[in-house]
Amino acid sequence: MSKGENTRERIIEQTAPLFNKMGFFGASMSDIMEVTGLKKGGIYNHFGSKEELALEAFDHAAACVSSRIAALVAEKTGAVDRLEAFAEVFVQNLLDPPVAGGCPLLNTAVEADDAHPALRERAQQAMDRWQRRITDVIAEGTASGELKPDLDANVVATRLIATLEGGTMMSRLYGDPVHVRRAVEFVKDYVRRDLAA
Amino acid sequence: MSKGENTRERIIEQTAPLFNKMGFFGASMSDIMEVTGLKKGGIYNHFGSKEELALEAFDHAAACVSSRIAALVAEKTGAVDRLEAFAEVFVQNLLDPPVAGGCPLLNTAVEADDAHPALRERAQQAMDRWQRRITDVIAEGTASGELKPDLDANVVATRLIATLEGGTMMSRLYGDPVHVRRAVEFVKDYVRRDLAA
Repeated sequence: MSKGENTRERIIEQTAPLFNKMGFFGASMSDIMEVTGLKKGGIYNHFGSKEELALEAFDHAAACVSSRIAALVAEKTGAVDRLEAFAEVFVQNLLDPPVAGGCPLLNTAVEADDAHPALRERAQQAMDRWQRRITDVIAEGTASGELKPDLDANVVATRLIATLEGGTMMSRLYGDPVHVRRAVEFVKDYVRRDLAA
Repeated sequence: MSKGENTRERIIEQTAPLFNKMGFFGASMSDIMEVTGLKKGGIYNHFGSKEELALEAFDHAAACVSSRIAALVAEKTGAVDRLEAFAEVFVQNLLDPPVAGGCPLLNTAVEADDAHPALRERAQQAMDRWQRRITDVIAEGTASGELKPDLDANVVATRLIATLEGGTMMSRLYGDPVHVRRAVEFVKDYVRRDLAA
């Protein structure tokens, strides 16, 4: 990487937690200058606008979360263990977040739905990937006979993601992991009782 | 109400949808002036700060949602029907929101967790009330024998709220009610299979 590319990458990494904690609108240019140690001109040398930086920071944050999920799910074999591992990542992400500020998908989906179409589109793309990750596991598990044959993989994906993200929201609201732990147990009960063949 | 109280109330009602859509940080003073038709001085006559207005607008929005839930739940008798009614309200709230911009609890919880302690506290209080609404129904249903005797009402409350709020987040992200409908079905399966005696 050139020096310029290095600086660009460093700005993205330093501002991803800021945007994730404060939101696109809550993170001001002076916050961005503070966390990067750069002047306004130094930021604008690399990004055309705060929006352009925010989109890249979101993609970076979403990639950090995805990498962790992918690594933990890949350690497991079999659909049931993989779906349970997907659920358990949410406890780990709460206690030791890959990017400070909680789940970037949840944060950005909620902030951007009415307020920022470009960010909303990035959050949709990241959510599409999460859903596909789950529907792929369902397809494999159905093919191998480990899971029931008549599952609607899209329904399963919504049930898992909705429950785990909602539990994350409650745990972060109260600063108490109990809610995400309860959400994980709900998902695991469902996987064992309704999905396993 | 005096004329001043009327104006104050009107400002709260007009800005509640703005804060709910754009967030505390996303709603600018010029947005507030636009939706109220008042000059900055006219706003500050009634509220000491944007924060003071935002807190009142949140309480107003949360009360609008709570009134609807209370009315629909009160139409039902019995714990199973009441819990199912609580779930179904989330579809109605998505399609015909009491306050534009989606669920004010979800929006405010996610925005405020790191970024705004006073708003976060209001969201906690509103979430406390929702949880209590559910735990009260569980207690009645357990006492009457309609529900199983050994339920942990707090676990039930988290499972319901997390799933329904997560489904709301996904539906609003995609502009597609399918996710919240799937979340409602998940909750209803759970109520009938695991809670009903």
